[in-house]
Amino acid sequence: MVVYLVGAGPGDPDLITLKAVKALKKANVVIYDRLANNEILKYAENADLIYVGKKAGEHYKKQDEINQILIDQGKKHQNVVRLKGGDPFVFGRGGEEMLALLEEGICVEFIPGVTSAIGVPTSSGLPVTHRGIATSLTIVTGHEDPTKPNKQVKWDFKADTIIILMGIGLLEENTKEIMKYKDPKTPVCVIENGTSPDQRIITGTLEDITQNHINTPALVIVGKVVDVFKESLLKKAKLEKVEGK
Amino acid sequence: MVVYLVGAGPGDPDLITLKAVKALKKANVVIYDRLANNEILKYAENADLIYVGKKAGEHYKKQDEINQILIDQGKKHQNVVRLKGGDPFVFGRGGEEMLALLEEGICVEFIPGVTSAIGVPTSSGLPVTHRGIATSLTIVTGHEDPTKPNKQVKWDFKADTIIILMGIGLLEENTKEIMKYKDPKTPVCVIENGTSPDQRIITGTLEDITQNHINTPALVIVGKVVDVFKESLLKKAKLEKVEGK
Repeated sequence: MVVYLVGAGPGDPDLITLKAVKALKKANVVIYDRLANNEILKYAENADLIYVGKKAGEHYKKQDEINQILIDQGKKHQNVVRLKGGDPFVFGRGGEEMLALLEEGICVEFIPGVTSAIGVPTSSGLPVTHRGIATSLTIVTGHEDPTKPNKQVKWDFKADTIIILMGIGLLEENTKEIMKYKDPKTPVCVIENGTSPDQRIITGTLEDITQNHINTPALVIVGKVVDVFKESLLKKAKLEKVEGK
Repeated sequence: MVVYLVGAGPGDPDLITLKAVKALKKANVVIYDRLANNEILKYAENADLIYVGKKAGEHYKKQDEINQILIDQGKKHQNVVRLKGGDPFVFGRGGEEMLALLEEGICVEFIPGVTSAIGVPTSSGLPVTHRGIATSLTIVTGHEDPTKPNKQVKWDFKADTIIILMGIGLLEENTKEIMKYKDPKTPVCVIENGTSPDQRIITGTLEDITQNHINTPALVIVGKVVDVFKESLLKKAKLEKVEGK
């Protein structure tokens, strides 16, 4: 009896790992969140599928209820897959699920996934680190209300690149916070629906990025690496012109 | 004529993505670094293999030479794969290679990989974020000499979790720097040879971790998430005792 905590990757169904595919193939049951693309569920040929996804504004299961479902299924079946978008431990509450399962005496194994925080910019040609420009990067959740007392996220990160997940709802509040510590002209890139056919890229600066209409899900990248990305886009555009595209 | 910048993942050959396998299968030539595991080269059934890996103390190719090889091969072949450990843009100098190729009019595509910075702790059951404990994580390269003038890495990162890649050679210097900003009792975990059969895990604190002998390659994780990991190990040990293992 094992529950596998599995990362599904950032959206493109081909960005799942071989190890995750193998776990899905032998699963008796798959408990899954709202994924960027449900196509990967096709690998779960012999499994019952249980949806426990959350979506803003819709009725959803509480974490306690999800933990209980994992425990119940883990006690009943040989191979249970708990499937999460990206990597299971990057803001996926995988740690809580792990502890709840171990507490009940259920074995847990872990299969990492390509986190959208890195996989989405990389897929687009945006290098999250770059020699001489960025030797560090911070990944942070953007959905903590910055006006709440005792907030955990302080935004004075010293890393060269800041990548914000779930950062659109409070983008105005959070960019204001970041501008207390970084130049308002610092370049920003927003990638909507990363790695999907609907992907859309918007660039700007800390002070003007919120003037755009942005759809969720979207990732926000702050830092000079966005200029490296823009340089590559210019070179690409020149290349396409030469080829007469 | 396309050069694919491809991430090979953290070491375990099953932690490569389906997309990377597909790119390797159709490659005419694969230009690769020293990888944690060469087994994945088997997917490059029809490709010439060119090794350009670097290793401390051994004769190795300079980045300019590697760029030139990529350009030469990119002009000659339909499908070229540039294969890197982890993700191609996390300290992989992928950004420089991208710009060099575009400058020469060669198309570049990008296939992200599971970065060892996240994939190694996740595989081990160490959650790099955890509700109420870590809402941010910083990934940083540890090989910059902290005594050099104008050093880029300042170590006063405010993120809850700090993950250091290539951090063993200067671990003593860097933990001293971090202790200027964080409690010396902050828990630390070192994972040697992550995701491989030789994996070894060492835990301690900022002030005592360097008392251990550590082999490279190894990843360093600093922060309270290490306590969550230790809690999970205790639960696992209890579980194994109950099962009479």
